[in-house]
Amino acid sequence: MSQPRRIIGFDPSLVSCGWGVIDVLGNKMRHVAHGVIKPPRKEPLASRLSFLFVAAQDAIEAHSPSEAGVEEAFMKDNAMSALKLGQARAACILAATQSGLIVGEYAARLVKKSVVGTGAADKAQVAHMMNLLLPGANVEAGDAADALAIAVTHANHYR
Amino acid sequence: MSQPRRIIGFDPSLVSCGWGVIDVLGNKMRHVAHGVIKPPRKEPLASRLSFLFVAAQDAIEAHSPSEAGVEEAFMKDNAMSALKLGQARAACILAATQSGLIVGEYAARLVKKSVVGTGAADKAQVAHMMNLLLPGANVEAGDAADALAIAVTHANHYR
Repeated sequence: MSQPRRIIGFDPSLVSCGWGVIDVLGNKMRHVAHGVIKPPRKEPLASRLSFLFVAAQDAIEAHSPSEAGVEEAFMKDNAMSALKLGQARAACILAATQSGLIVGEYAARLVKKSVVGTGAADKAQVAHMMNLLLPGANVEAGDAADALAIAVTHANHYR
Repeated sequence: MSQPRRIIGFDPSLVSCGWGVIDVLGNKMRHVAHGVIKPPRKEPLASRLSFLFVAAQDAIEAHSPSEAGVEEAFMKDNAMSALKLGQARAACILAATQSGLIVGEYAARLVKKSVVGTGAADKAQVAHMMNLLLPGANVEAGDAADALAIAVTHANHYR
């Protein structure tokens, strides 16, 4: 019996950052855990980034994944939103790299296409598919379901 | 005799990130060190961010500042540049917060106005003023001079 690959997915955000952990053995997948990190909104940026970084490291330490998938950002407008998202992504990526994880990045459309079959899927469809693919996940539509979908995408695409 | 405040300034960038360390005692300032961090350009983003984070932590460890100044980003266009800059800023901010430093953020215009007297100063003027204000700095125009200017701005504005 080979060991399962354990993967954590991150849906980065400074407001509500989803994470989800799965095990993959051959073509079987299993839900391990998921959650949402909400840095205190009224704190200065440095405190919120540090909160996100430490909480992401805590999730990694609690579940010991060896690989991470992070949603790739595609921004065509609103530079201030892009700047904030860049900061949140870096906190998640650094939490993973500093814990020694392999990191893959996946565009939102590829994530949706991988788990629902269309790049235009909505959050409810993504959550529905996660609960079908990962029995016992019982995840509601939102950031944690998206993070599990990113982990599933990493499982299927990272080589 | 009270202790000097030791401050590190960062001019964040994923390509060439300047840093500079000064001591402040009353209204006297002293140059301590400066440098530039250049993450390997052909590596994946996660490796470059990790390189920047670790090198920024190394600069902090080597000089033991207790406060950090980071250039605040003001982006009005080009969302992809904003995203990259956000990632570089987060690596610098997290290197500081995870080493227990106080962090202040300063807009580029404020930095130039603080050290040259006009928000429209160019890089050569900033470097010139740094060499006047901080004898022995011998810093050339560029990212490290800008980082020293950010440290000076932090010294004058952080309360």
